[in-house]
Amino acid sequence: MSDESLENEQIGERLYQDAARLFPICRSLTGNGVRETLRIIQAALAPSGAQGPKASLEIHEVASGTSALDWTVPEEWNIRDAFIADPDGTRIVDFSANNLHVLGYSTPVDGYFELDELDPHLYSIAERPDVIPYVTSYYSKRWGFCVSDNVRKSLRPGVKYHVVIDSEFKNGSLSYGELIIPGQVADEVFLSTYICHPSMANNNEVSGPVVLTEVARWLSLKPRRFTYRIVFIPETIGAIVYLSRHLETLKKNVRAGFNVSCVGDDRGYSMVASPYENTLADKVALNVGSFLSPYFKKYSFLERGSDERQYCSPGVELPVVTLCRSKFNEYPEYHTSLDDMNLISPAGFKGGFNFVKRCLEVMECNQRIRVTCFGEPQLGKRGLYPSLSTKGSASVVKSMMDLIAYADGRNDLIKISEIIKVPVWELVPIIEKLRAANLIESESA
Amino acid sequence: MSDESLENEQIGERLYQDAARLFPICRSLTGNGVRETLRIIQAALAPSGAQGPKASLEIHEVASGTSALDWTVPEEWNIRDAFIADPDGTRIVDFSANNLHVLGYSTPVDGYFELDELDPHLYSIAERPDVIPYVTSYYSKRWGFCVSDNVRKSLRPGVKYHVVIDSEFKNGSLSYGELIIPGQVADEVFLSTYICHPSMANNNEVSGPVVLTEVARWLSLKPRRFTYRIVFIPETIGAIVYLSRHLETLKKNVRAGFNVSCVGDDRGYSMVASPYENTLADKVALNVGSFLSPYFKKYSFLERGSDERQYCSPGVELPVVTLCRSKFNEYPEYHTSLDDMNLISPAGFKGGFNFVKRCLEVMECNQRIRVTCFGEPQLGKRGLYPSLSTKGSASVVKSMMDLIAYADGRNDLIKISEIIKVPVWELVPIIEKLRAANLIESESA
Amino acid sequence: MSDESLENEQIGERLYQDAARLFPICRSLTGNGVRETLRIIQAALAPSGAQGPKASLEIHEVASGTSALDWTVPEEWNIRDAFIADPDGTRIVDFSANNLHVLGYSTPVDGYFELDELDPHLYSIAERPDVIPYVTSYYSKRWGFCVSDNVRKSLRPGVKYHVVIDSEFKNGSLSYGELIIPGQVADEVFLSTYICHPSMANNNEVSGPVVLTEVARWLSLKPRRFTYRIVFIPETIGAIVYLSRHLETLKKNVRAGFNVSCVGDDRGYSMVASPYENTLADKVALNVGSFLSPYFKKYSFLERGSDERQYCSPGVELPVVTLCRSKFNEYPEYHTSLDDMNLISPAGFKGGFNFVKRCLEVMECNQRIRVTCFGEPQLGKRGLYPSLSTKGSASVVKSMMDLIAYADGRNDLIKISEIIKVPVWELVPIIEKLRAANLIESESA
Repeated sequence: MSDESLENEQIGERLYQDAARLFPICRSLTGNGVRETLRIIQAALAPSGAQGPKASLEIHEVASGTSALDWTVPEEWNIRDAFIADPDGTRIVDFSANNLHVLGYSTPVDGYFELDELDPHLYSIAERPDVIPYVTSYYSKRWGFCVSDNVRKSLRPGVKYHVVIDSEFKNGSLSYGELIIPGQVADEVFLSTYICHPSMANNNEVSGPVVLTEVARWLSLKPRRFTYRIVFIPETIGAIVYLSRHLETLKKNVRAGFNVSCVGDDRGYSMVASPYENTLADKVALNVGSFLSPYFKKYSFLERGSDERQYCSPGVELPVVTLCRSKFNEYPEYHTSLDDMNLISPAGFKGGFNFVKRCLEVMECNQRIRVTCFGEPQLGKRGLYPSLSTKGSASVVKSMMDLIAYADGRNDLIKISEIIKVPVWELVPIIEKLRAANLIESESA
Repeated sequence: MSDESLENEQIGERLYQDAARLFPICRSLTGNGVRETLRIIQAALAPSGAQGPKASLEIHEVASGTSALDWTVPEEWNIRDAFIADPDGTRIVDFSANNLHVLGYSTPVDGYFELDELDPHLYSIAERPDVIPYVTSYYSKRWGFCVSDNVRKSLRPGVKYHVVIDSEFKNGSLSYGELIIPGQVADEVFLSTYICHPSMANNNEVSGPVVLTEVARWLSLKPRRFTYRIVFIPETIGAIVYLSRHLETLKKNVRAGFNVSCVGDDRGYSMVASPYENTLADKVALNVGSFLSPYFKKYSFLERGSDERQYCSPGVELPVVTLCRSKFNEYPEYHTSLDDMNLISPAGFKGGFNFVKRCLEVMECNQRIRVTCFGEPQLGKRGLYPSLSTKGSASVVKSMMDLIAYADGRNDLIKISEIIKVPVWELVPIIEKLRAANLIESESA
Repeated sequence: MSDESLENEQIGERLYQDAARLFPICRSLTGNGVRETLRIIQAALAPSGAQGPKASLEIHEVASGTSALDWTVPEEWNIRDAFIADPDGTRIVDFSANNLHVLGYSTPVDGYFELDELDPHLYSIAERPDVIPYVTSYYSKRWGFCVSDNVRKSLRPGVKYHVVIDSEFKNGSLSYGELIIPGQVADEVFLSTYICHPSMANNNEVSGPVVLTEVARWLSLKPRRFTYRIVFIPETIGAIVYLSRHLETLKKNVRAGFNVSCVGDDRGYSMVASPYENTLADKVALNVGSFLSPYFKKYSFLERGSDERQYCSPGVELPVVTLCRSKFNEYPEYHTSLDDMNLISPAGFKGGFNFVKRCLEVMECNQRIRVTCFGEPQLGKRGLYPSLSTKGSASVVKSMMDLIAYADGRNDLIKISEIIKVPVWELVPIIEKLRAANLIESESA
C-alpha cells in the first residue's frame, strides 16, 4: 500500500480535465447524453499498448417497457433544443446556454403563451433569485422550464412568449455500463455510480463517473485478490434494472460495495452508512474516513438519497455504503446551477480518488493476524527495537508493539487499526517487517 | 389508532369528577373504605343497555391470617372517628376533617393525656409546618396522629387533652378487585393499580383507579387482540396475595404489564423500568413516553416504590413497568396533605389516560412487517409519491420511505419507530395505505 | 471482610519502614542486589512461633543462556563501584552516592577521557537540569553515566577525567522469588511484582515488593478459598522466564491475576486493563477502584508498560490487570532520581495495600446469590425493617432491598454492587443477616 505517489500528485489535475469533458453533456435517465458519456468512459478504459491488461467497459441497452422488480423502464427521452423567446425573438431562457433550464423528461411543446399560461410551467427558487434549480418529472408527463427567479420576475403580462421544447419520447432503451475486473477469488467488491444528471459537477454525473473510471484503470493495473464489479448507471431505475438482472450473483459474491457520489469538491469526507451500520463496507469506510479527516462525517441510512437506497433495500440487503466528499443534499449548491466546474477542484478529485482507493486497499489487505510466539517477541535481537531504554524510547516502536499485542488471531487489521488508532496503511509495512522476521502469520479474515 | 377524539377532549373533566367522588373515602390496607371504593369502580363498569359488552369487576375477599408467599394477610382495620380535643371539648385534630390525621392501622385509644405523654404519638414535619404527613404502622401495633407542625407547637404542657381513636381490628378480610377482558388470544396484558391510601389525590388511590377504570371501559368497547387482566388491590400485601394465587398463570400468559400510579397531575410523564430494562413493557413505555414528551423520564428500578417491587421480584420476574405522570417520591406534595384535589387536574387526567391508552394501542398493533418487493417500490404509480421531483419533495413521503427501508421482517413497529423517530401511531395509517397497495405484509411480532 | 482495623492504621508506617530498608540496594535484571532483596522478603515471611502457618518464599536461580519463549536469560551483571573524577581526584559523579548514576548493565571501563570522548556516554535531561534519569542498556553492550544536566554542563574541555565502572558480567543466573499459599481449591489468584530497578521508591522495586510481602503475610493468616501464587521477579525477562516454566498451569488455574506496581504514593488509584477489559480481574479492580476513589482511573491496555505486557500477550492471555496508585509513565518523577523516599508515604502505602487487599477480599467473597422466596420477603417480622412507614424510612434498608431485588441467581456480588452502587464490602454483612434469616442462598459464581 503505497503513499501518495508522484502520479498521485498530478491525478487531481487529470481528473478535473476529465470532468470538464463530461460536464456539458445533457444527460437524463435515458437517451443519447447517457450513451455519449458511457462511450467516453469506455474509451478511457480501452486497452492501449504495452501497459498490460486494461478493463473493458460493456455498454448494455435495456428496452423501454421492460419490467424490473417493481418498476418499468421508461420511454427513451431525447432533446435537441428548447427556449423561451420574447416577441422580438430574443431567447430569454435557452437550453443551449444551460441544460438545467428544461424540466427533466419534459414533453415537447411549441406555442405562444402569455405569462399567466406560462407561469405554472416555471420552476425557480424565490429565496435564491440567481440560481437555476434542477427539477425532473420522470414518471408523470409535463413540460416545464427551470429558471432563476430573477428571469421569472422579468417576464411581463400581456406579451406572447414563444415557447419551444424540441424533445422526443420513443420506445428506445435505457443504457448502462458494466465492467468486471477479475481477481484471484470470486468474491467481489462492488462499485457503483450514476450517469443520469445533466450539467452538475459534483453531484455525481461528473465527479462519480470520473473517479470510478480512474479507480478502474488503477485496479486493472495492479495485483488483486477480489474481483471488482463496477457499474455506471442511471440513478434509481438503473440500479433497479441492474439488481433485477444480477441480484442472485450480487447476494452470493459481494463482500462489500461502495456507491460513489459527490467526490469532486474539497470540503470534507463523509459516508452514508448501511441500515444497521454493521457491514464490512461500513467498517472499511468508517475506518478509512476517520483517518483521512478528523471531521469525517458518518450519515445514518435515514439520510440516504442515492443508490444505496436500492442496494440496501429489504430483501436486497447488499453490504453497500455510499462514499462522498460533501454529501448530496447537505451542501448549498446541491441540485442547482451553482454545482458547476467552480465547485469542484483538482484537490477535491485527488481526495475523492484517494478515499475510494484507500477503501479498496483496506479491502485487499485486510486479514486476521497472529504472532508466532508466546509473550512479547524480543524485537531487539532482530534490530526492530532500540537497544537503549530511555524514558520515551518505547514510543518509537509503539505501533509495532500495539499491533503485536492484539495480533491474537481474533482481530482483522481493521479491528486492530480501530483499537490501536493507527491507519491500516501504516500497519501494512509493519506487518511486512514482522513477517520477514517470522514473527507473524495471517489467517483469512 | 385514532387521534384524540372529541370524547377525549372531555375525558379529563369526567375523570376529575370521578376522582372527586373517590377522594374523601378513608382507605387502608383492608376495611370498609376499600370495599366502598371497589363498589364504585364496579358500578362504573357495570353493563348498561345497548352500548354493547362491558367488563364486570369481581370483588374478592381474602381472610385475615391467610398465608401469601412470605407474608400473612393482616387483621381487618376499620375506623369510625378520631380526635384530639382540648379541655373545653374543641377538636384540635379531627379525623373527620382530614383522614390523614390518624396513623394508618392505629390501635384504639380513649383517654386524657398531658403533652409529654401525647407527644411520642405525634408525627409532623418540622421543615414544612403547614403540612400533615401520611404515616402508617401496618405491621407493628401503635396509635398515633399525623398533624401539621404548627398544630403540634400549639399544644401546651399542663393541660389534659382528650384523645380518641375509635378504631377496630378484627378477623375480617382483605378486599381486591379483578377484571378479565377477554381478547382473541390467551396472551395477556396486565394492568395494576392500588386502592389502599386515604385521601391523597395523585398518589394512586385516586388517580390510578380512576384512570384504569376508564381504560377498562375503553378496552371493553373495542376489538382486542390481547386478553386484559386488570387488578385494583391494596399495595404490597395485595400484590403479594394476588401473586400467590395467580403466579403460574401470570408467568405463562403475561406479555407485558403496566402498574399505574400518580397519573392525575399535569407536570410530566415518567416510568419506572424493570430491573434489566429489557422487557416488552419497557420498550412500549419508553417508546410512547418519549414521543409524548421530550422531558419524559425513565427511572431505574433502583427508584422503584410501588407494586413493580413485587411483580419484578426474583422468581416472579413479570415483564412489568410502572407508568406515572409525576412519579411517587419525586414531587414535593407526595405523601402529605398537599396531595389533594388541587394537585390533580382534568388536563392531568387526560394525559394520564392517554399515556396508558397509547401503550395499549402500541401493544395491540405491534407487528413485524416486510415489504413484498425487492428494491424500493414505485410509489408514484400508486399515487403514493409526488410526481414532480423538486429539491425537498422527497421529504413529503419521508416517513413512508423510512418505514419501508426498515420493513425487512427483522423489526417490529416499536423498533422501526425508534429507528426512524416517528411515533407508532403515525406509522399505523401509513401501513394501512401500503397494505391496501399490497406492498407490505405482517408477521407476528 | 473487616473495616480497616487498628492494625491497618499502623500498617502504612510499617510498610514505609520496610521500603526504607529496600531502597538503597542497587538492583538490576540479575545480580546480588536482586538476591539481597529476595532474602529480605524471604525473612519477612519466615514462619515465626505460635502465630500459625506462614508462607515460605522459594528463591529460584535460572542460568544465564537459558532459553525462555522468544528470549534468552542474559549474563549476570554486578557492580562494585563507579565514578567520574576530575584531575584532582574529586568524584564529580559517584555511584555510591546514587546508584542511578550508572547506565544499567554498563560494561566495565577504567580510563582517562576528555569531554568530547566522554560526552557520548552521558545521559541527562536538558529540560530538567537537576534530575538524574534512569537509563538501561540490557541487550546491547555499552557503558555510560546518568547525570543531572547541571553536572554535565559543569564538565570542561581540555581536562582528562578519570572514568571508572567496576562492573562485571559472568555466566551466572537470574533470580526470582515464588510463593504458593494453598487454599481450599486449586483455582488460583496470581500476584506479581518486580524487583529489578535500582533506587526508585514508587516505581515498584520498592513499593510493589513491600506491599505484596505484606499481602502474603495477611493472606497466610486468614482462611482462604483460592490458592495464591505470588512472584517477585525481574521485569519482562523474569515474567517471560516464569511463563516459560508455568504457562500450562497458569492457563489452567488462574482465575484472576494482579500485577502490582507503583503503590506507595498518595495521589490516586488506577489500573491498567487487560486487552479486552473483560476478565474477572478487570471487573474486580474496576469495582474496587471505583469505590475507593471517585478519581479512580482505568488506563487501557494501550497504556500498558509493566508485566501485564507479558501476562496478557497473545497465546498467554491470562486474566491479569495491573494495580497502581499513580501509574508508571504518568507521574513526573517516574524513572528519575526524584522517585525517592519523599515521593512515597505511609498514607500512600496504606492505600496501596488496601487496594490490593480489597481486590482479594472481593475475589474471596464473590458469589451468585438468590432469595429463597417469591415477592419481597417480609423483613419486618424478622426485625430487619422499621415497623413505622414514614416518608424516607424506606431508605434505611435501601441497600438490603436493592440487593434482594437483584438476588435472582443471575448476578454475582460484583455485578450487584455495580448495579446498586454499593461496595461489595458493604454487601457482605447484609448477606450474612439475610442468610441467618434463611432468606438467601448462594450459588458458586
